[in-house]
Amino acid sequence: MGKFKLDEVDHQILDMLIDNTRVPFTDVAKKLLVSAGTVHVRVKKMEEAGIIEGSSLTLNYQKLGYSFIAYVGLFLQNTSQTKFVLERLNQIPYVTVAHITTGKFNIFCKIRAKSTTHAKEIIFMIDDIEGVYRTETMISLEESINDKKRLMHTIFNEL
Amino acid sequence: MGKFKLDEVDHQILDMLIDNTRVPFTDVAKKLLVSAGTVHVRVKKMEEAGIIEGSSLTLNYQKLGYSFIAYVGLFLQNTSQTKFVLERLNQIPYVTVAHITTGKFNIFCKIRAKSTTHAKEIIFMIDDIEGVYRTETMISLEESINDKKRLMHTIFNEL
Amino acid sequence: MGKFKLDEVDHQILDMLIDNTRVPFTDVAKKLLVSAGTVHVRVKKMEEAGIIEGSSLTLNYQKLGYSFIAYVGLFLQNTSQTKFVLERLNQIPYVTVAHITTGKFNIFCKIRAKSTTHAKEIIFMIDDIEGVYRTETMISLEESINDKKRLMHTIFNEL
Amino acid sequence: MGKFKLDEVDHQILDMLIDNTRVPFTDVAKKLLVSAGTVHVRVKKMEEAGIIEGSSLTLNYQKLGYSFIAYVGLFLQNTSQTKFVLERLNQIPYVTVAHITTGKFNIFCKIRAKSTTHAKEIIFMIDDIEGVYRTETMISLEESINDKKRLMHTIFNEL
Amino acid sequence: MGKFKLDEVDHQILDMLIDNTRVPFTDVAKKLLVSAGTVHVRVKKMEEAGIIEGSSLTLNYQKLGYSFIAYVGLFLQNTSQTKFVLERLNQIPYVTVAHITTGKFNIFCKIRAKSTTHAKEIIFMIDDIEGVYRTETMISLEESINDKKRLMHTIFNEL
Amino acid sequence: MGKFKLDEVDHQILDMLIDNTRVPFTDVAKKLLVSAGTVHVRVKKMEEAGIIEGSSLTLNYQKLGYSFIAYVGLFLQNTSQTKFVLERLNQIPYVTVAHITTGKFNIFCKIRAKSTTHAKEIIFMIDDIEGVYRTETMISLEESINDKKRLMHTIFNEL
Amino acid sequence: MGKFKLDEVDHQILDMLIDNTRVPFTDVAKKLLVSAGTVHVRVKKMEEAGIIEGSSLTLNYQKLGYSFIAYVGLFLQNTSQTKFVLERLNQIPYVTVAHITTGKFNIFCKIRAKSTTHAKEIIFMIDDIEGVYRTETMISLEESINDKKRLMHTIFNEL
Amino acid sequence: MGKFKLDEVDHQILDMLIDNTRVPFTDVAKKLLVSAGTVHVRVKKMEEAGIIEGSSLTLNYQKLGYSFIAYVGLFLQNTSQTKFVLERLNQIPYVTVAHITTGKFNIFCKIRAKSTTHAKEIIFMIDDIEGVYRTETMISLEESINDKKRLMHTIFNEL
Repeated sequence: MGKFKLDEVDHQILDMLIDNTRVPFTDVAKKLLVSAGTVHVRVKKMEEAGIIEGSSLTLNYQKLGYSFIAYVGLFLQNTSQTKFVLERLNQIPYVTVAHITTGKFNIFCKIRAKSTTHAKEIIFMIDDIEGVYRTETMISLEESINDKKRLMHTIFNEL
Repeated sequence: MGKFKLDEVDHQILDMLIDNTRVPFTDVAKKLLVSAGTVHVRVKKMEEAGIIEGSSLTLNYQKLGYSFIAYVGLFLQNTSQTKFVLERLNQIPYVTVAHITTGKFNIFCKIRAKSTTHAKEIIFMIDDIEGVYRTETMISLEESINDKKRLMHTIFNEL
Repeated sequence: MGKFKLDEVDHQILDMLIDNTRVPFTDVAKKLLVSAGTVHVRVKKMEEAGIIEGSSLTLNYQKLGYSFIAYVGLFLQNTSQTKFVLERLNQIPYVTVAHITTGKFNIFCKIRAKSTTHAKEIIFMIDDIEGVYRTETMISLEESINDKKRLMHTIFNEL
Repeated sequence: MGKFKLDEVDHQILDMLIDNTRVPFTDVAKKLLVSAGTVHVRVKKMEEAGIIEGSSLTLNYQKLGYSFIAYVGLFLQNTSQTKFVLERLNQIPYVTVAHITTGKFNIFCKIRAKSTTHAKEIIFMIDDIEGVYRTETMISLEESINDKKRLMHTIFNEL
Repeated sequence: MGKFKLDEVDHQILDMLIDNTRVPFTDVAKKLLVSAGTVHVRVKKMEEAGIIEGSSLTLNYQKLGYSFIAYVGLFLQNTSQTKFVLERLNQIPYVTVAHITTGKFNIFCKIRAKSTTHAKEIIFMIDDIEGVYRTETMISLEESINDKKRLMHTIFNEL
Repeated sequence: MGKFKLDEVDHQILDMLIDNTRVPFTDVAKKLLVSAGTVHVRVKKMEEAGIIEGSSLTLNYQKLGYSFIAYVGLFLQNTSQTKFVLERLNQIPYVTVAHITTGKFNIFCKIRAKSTTHAKEIIFMIDDIEGVYRTETMISLEESINDKKRLMHTIFNEL
Repeated sequence: MGKFKLDEVDHQILDMLIDNTRVPFTDVAKKLLVSAGTVHVRVKKMEEAGIIEGSSLTLNYQKLGYSFIAYVGLFLQNTSQTKFVLERLNQIPYVTVAHITTGKFNIFCKIRAKSTTHAKEIIFMIDDIEGVYRTETMISLEESINDKKRLMHTIFNEL
Repeated sequence: MGKFKLDEVDHQILDMLIDNTRVPFTDVAKKLLVSAGTVHVRVKKMEEAGIIEGSSLTLNYQKLGYSFIAYVGLFLQNTSQTKFVLERLNQIPYVTVAHITTGKFNIFCKIRAKSTTHAKEIIFMIDDIEGVYRTETMISLEESINDKKRLMHTIFNEL
């Protein structure tokens, strides 16, 4: 597969950007004792290799009125409908994650809603997608961990 | 609860930063026809209000060798152990998400691993936490959607 | 939402009426050291605000020959039929409670019957509603608690 | 068992009181073309026979801030603990109904809470009762029917 | 319902016949110190009242080559088909017991077969009945108790 | 294993006795055109071979006040307790059948009770047996088939 | 059924061939103190009797790139389709084992795949077979035992 | 990982040996137009690389009296006991396959037995292993496919 090789410098750059994507490259350069140009080139290369896909804000959904999280498992009438159903799920912005899974469900997704009533509406939208024959919902009482940074640091320490 | 009110300008700032957190504030200002200082002040205020909690890189885990995703449901011996178990889960970097849930499981979490064998080791780590009495695993065959940006845009359009 | 505010007097009035809805307002007034008119006005206001929806007798169903209680979970063919099915359930007087639920069932209801045979007939009525594709029944061996008064007192003590 | 026999007049009295427990006995008497004394005597007799156990207000829980309803199934370590667990459940005012049931669960109960977080606290209280070894929760997305009056009318029409 | 009353003599007669239906009535009479005519009359009366429905041999199925016992749960497409499916089950002689049940299954039955292969054929016959949409089988590894005599003695001692 | 061979005459004798165990041997003999002595000898031989284990009355349990039937599945703490638990079940006369089974349950049994309350008491007796760690109950709404005679006739026609 | 009888010599021959099918018959003969012709004749007879069906290499699937093993349970729309579905499964080389089973599933099979993605494709092939209405997958994290030789030795020691 | 590369000749050798492990190397050589020495060297290399682990007879278990196949799922008290339990399973020759699995079970294994009674004994042996807290059994009614040769041919055609 020709995996892109990250060296020690790449690793340190990512390590800094993970915690704050807005840190200026000159600060990164100073800290790592390399030139700002090097930082720029390295980041560019990692973007081109598809390792860095972008950046995103971490917002507080509760403060934005979206305190309700649920996992919804979908049973399809036939797995040949999987692709179509995923396209339709993709049009529901409240569905933030969706996986094709083994076990009980064909598709398993995560939704964020404003309230119980709003959640009901979203679940009904999903139930109404052609090819979805039944759904099962599991409600989150508390999102206790949502943090990919620990994983990223582990990955970079391993490489 | 005294919810912080976002106005049209806040909304437009967030809308731009969501897609690229590194866009310079001067570019944001130019686009929105406000001063760079205004952008700076608004972002600061939203950070202080806890609406913006930070920023994060979107990395491609497959290219980093972490192509295996699973959901693990935990049954605890007693829910009084919930807090303790969550602290221990928090020490396993491969656990990226964990929820206290209703329904079948006490805690439901998401893990990322390098391979089936690696997943087995992580599941065993979880099983070995004191107070965890059984786990059930559901494996992802494909991560089809993982995108909070659609939700964010929807939220800002609603406000 | 502009929630209606109950003050200490409202609270004490409700506290008395909960235990006996037929207590004369003059008795309530005497006890609370207010005028009967005040009691009358307050009750009226709480009725208009929709907080008091009505009153009901607590009857002993066993003595009336209805000793059989069961919970019935309904799976629908499609959640778009939910409203229609609820209307049909509403025509079966033996269904005293019905909820749209998360988890295994689409609708979950409570029935009261005279006997096992009567319960069978009611379950068959439910099964025959168009759009109901399967039901699952859980039978009560003893109704050990059925008391909303403790909750009401707690609510009024909190306010 | 010597079941108490209700006659046509009892039936008509109950039929009126069911819809409004506060209707004056003189109004009932006038409508049924009997004396107020007769109404009084009949109600007294039905109370003494235990058929009328009391009366209760129908309050709007949503307006009182209790919009969250869930059903919680309890698995006990041993059914010899049933009585003890029910006594403990009876001390949690948010538990409004509890049944000893056949099937999956030993005890099945209904709770009312203010929010997801409050529900979590109540479920944890239940989980912490000695002898409770696991619980499973099903959340109501909408209370569509909660009406015993239809049943009561049916009962009185049958007698 | 006008339940038929059994007296002490009836009870003693049944107690003897339960253990051996072929015991001559004269022997029963001698043991109970009544006339043979009395025994005859009592048995007749219990037959006419429908309490004694008949008598049956207890055969050893293993010795007759039927060592395989299984319980089969049926899910119907619609409970309106229950009566029809039971008629069809009644035409399969290997189905010795069938119940309409609460819980998971619509109908639950017991089958006796000669071997695993024979059991497969019987299960396929059941699956092929119109209206049966799925079956689930639980196989007996040992029939440890099959004895109604203990119950009968208990019943007669209670009366 | 040296299976006992039944011939045509044995078969015809059993065929008659199955429907009425009290039919006199002289009647059987007349019908089959053999001597009464032959019938006697054949029955004796089948008893000695253990094929005929005895005879039993078919009673109407409903008329005797036992209208409630349930199936109870037992989970044991350890299968080494199977024998002990079966001995204890054997002391509860309301347990008429018990099997060691594959699948979900360790032991699966059938009970007959007088009422819902009586069933609850019996289930509690079972739950209290040492080594029983949980039970699950499925209630019969109607015993639609309970007939081994069809099977017996089939067996004798096959031989 | 006229079961073929294996004697001590057959047993010893099988015992040697089980561990290495390529061992020359002269070596087997020398070890067992019989002639090579005898070994030849015995093996031939066991092949003709259908006891020896053939021989097969034991390959290391991991080294061949097939490290992914899963068990897939199939629910059919109707068991009359069983034979057809098995024929179709037989055309998918990644399905190495398939059984008609009791319990939850109609057919239960084992698959070997190159990766999670490959497994997804195979599961989709199975889901697409006409008559298959749903599948459930259980993934192997480690194949810990796969050895029929212990069983064979036990069988030959018993005979 | 430095995967061993199989070339066209290796592939053709394996393709012949899969169907009959006892075919002489001279026959293989003649068919492939190479020298017998080449065949010998290639097989040796594949054995040393661990690709060929050995060879095995395909016996007919039914003819050997082992017609009963079941799958047994094990729940462990704690996954730290996995290794110990697998060692103990390995001492029961009737367990021919065992996997550590995701989903419902900790360990999933396949057994072969002589009869229902024998299966019961084997299941009890498994249940008695320290650390095994419950088992669930699924019985095979027919082994419809058991054939790795199709897979092997596919593998070699792909390489």
